[in-house]
Amino acid sequence: MTSLLAADTQQPIRGVLAPVVTPFRYDLEIDTSAFIEHCKWIVDAGAGLAVFGTNSEAASLSFAERIALLDTLIDAGLPAAKMMPGTGTASLKETVELTRHAVNAGAAGVLMLPPYYFKNPSENGLFDYFSRVIDSVSDSRLKVYLYHIPQFTQIPITLALIERLVKRYPGVVRGAKDSSGDWANTEAMIRTFGRNGFDVFPASEALMAKAVAIGGAGCISATANMYPRGLTELYDALTSGKPTTTSSTALAVRDIFMSVPMIPAMKYVISKVTRQPAWSVVRPPLTALPEELGADLLRRLEDIRFAMHGRSA
Amino acid sequence: MTSLLAADTQQPIRGVLAPVVTPFRYDLEIDTSAFIEHCKWIVDAGAGLAVFGTNSEAASLSFAERIALLDTLIDAGLPAAKMMPGTGTASLKETVELTRHAVNAGAAGVLMLPPYYFKNPSENGLFDYFSRVIDSVSDSRLKVYLYHIPQFTQIPITLALIERLVKRYPGVVRGAKDSSGDWANTEAMIRTFGRNGFDVFPASEALMAKAVAIGGAGCISATANMYPRGLTELYDALTSGKPTTTSSTALAVRDIFMSVPMIPAMKYVISKVTRQPAWSVVRPPLTALPEELGADLLRRLEDIRFAMHGRSA
Repeated sequence: MTSLLAADTQQPIRGVLAPVVTPFRYDLEIDTSAFIEHCKWIVDAGAGLAVFGTNSEAASLSFAERIALLDTLIDAGLPAAKMMPGTGTASLKETVELTRHAVNAGAAGVLMLPPYYFKNPSENGLFDYFSRVIDSVSDSRLKVYLYHIPQFTQIPITLALIERLVKRYPGVVRGAKDSSGDWANTEAMIRTFGRNGFDVFPASEALMAKAVAIGGAGCISATANMYPRGLTELYDALTSGKPTTTSSTALAVRDIFMSVPMIPAMKYVISKVTRQPAWSVVRPPLTALPEELGADLLRRLEDIRFAMHGRSA
Repeated sequence: MTSLLAADTQQPIRGVLAPVVTPFRYDLEIDTSAFIEHCKWIVDAGAGLAVFGTNSEAASLSFAERIALLDTLIDAGLPAAKMMPGTGTASLKETVELTRHAVNAGAAGVLMLPPYYFKNPSENGLFDYFSRVIDSVSDSRLKVYLYHIPQFTQIPITLALIERLVKRYPGVVRGAKDSSGDWANTEAMIRTFGRNGFDVFPASEALMAKAVAIGGAGCISATANMYPRGLTELYDALTSGKPTTTSSTALAVRDIFMSVPMIPAMKYVISKVTRQPAWSVVRPPLTALPEELGADLLRRLEDIRFAMHGRSA
């Protein structure tokens, strides 16, 4: 059994996290300095860094790139205590190694996909998978957040699976990101496990108010790449009971980005705001936002007076 | 454009290939000597080695393991000309590196999954993905076989995509494995592209006769791990017009394995035949075949007088 003594000295990460988009150069290599700059801007706005998530195109990165890029962030002085790197891959072995590396880097937690190649795995198989990862990493600092995103993985993280994992690894299996968009599921996760320190993050600020009201931990939302200050203000208002005006703007921004291919659209906007055209590059199989769609997107964002405050050319 | 001169000096691989199951020890590390032994037995039976396929649990291997394991096979004297390693991953970069490594090892071809994390990619995105891989490897010896297995990837390799790739990379995009089990699709692939040297392999010996009759290239079938001699005899009979008695046995073997979890079941049978109990180990999220199911499987195989000829304890 893993000792919980060391783990308990660090406060669990809560609030708003951005699944940070990953900038590439035109040759598709990672632009590390652009990445550091974007991460710093997000942290300055009070949000955390869920690097290597779906919106980060993590699946399109190599194992070696993920290891090197996390090291680069740490070397650049970005705070590990604000990081929840994605470490789940299709392979148990790489998941173990990425997780161990993140723990050694001091990350506040790791966001872990289920192994997503084999379909219809049994609950025993999934339980065994996550158990093997946790037992192999075998580190009291490990905090695992399970990543429920069935529209990409087809492998749901069920309540029954969470229950078994939380029982076996209390304090280690520490929470979940629910990207299903299904409020009933998010609510069930929070109501079933929230009182025991299991932190549930919906994937959208649109669900954050409802989630926080019943004990949810914040949100891990793509649009925290666009509007992190607004989202952290909203979270602070929700948790302190103070009034805020950011909620309606946040939802309007969200609605706009939900109406276009999200990852290319966010990168397109950053490319315009920073005047770094390569920011619009995505790795295939994604495709860059067509210029007409981009121009229309910018017009709609202007209509609601959206700005990436503090981001500049 | 890639030159075809060098590529054309090697005969394309046809016939029966086994998506070779990968043996693990109880600690889940790869048992390389057991793997070499199994590969040799398959090659001795006249079949090729589609290592790192779905049935190989390739998704559960790490990038480093795949590189090292292919080198191990070559060093052990197994013929690269009989190999079609799977090199497709979710990541373009790793797919490029695995493909380049396989080409340098002298592999007859590579079997390439589409990037399978992002769902509903556009045809342009997939075309761009495969183009980038081929352009990056940039080697006249490269022969790509596209891997259509939508029940695992949700990303179909459509006829329209094949057409674009074959046009852009004639002689390089050389064929496909159709694991859909949908004969209408296999037939359409063969009838549309077969006459131009595009080799289509169904994933089952049950479809091999129909496929070969209209120009198909053989089959890449899981049960070639169990009964390779019977399948190569069947292929030889189909292509030479000579009579054979193996067809009904082959189909009976196939039916039995289709009725149980295929990968754990094949490994279970090998563990019994070789008296190497660890052969039954699978990596999570798969689970080993329960002993009761295994005992029943052995009884059913005995009923049809099945034997893994030449495999011994």
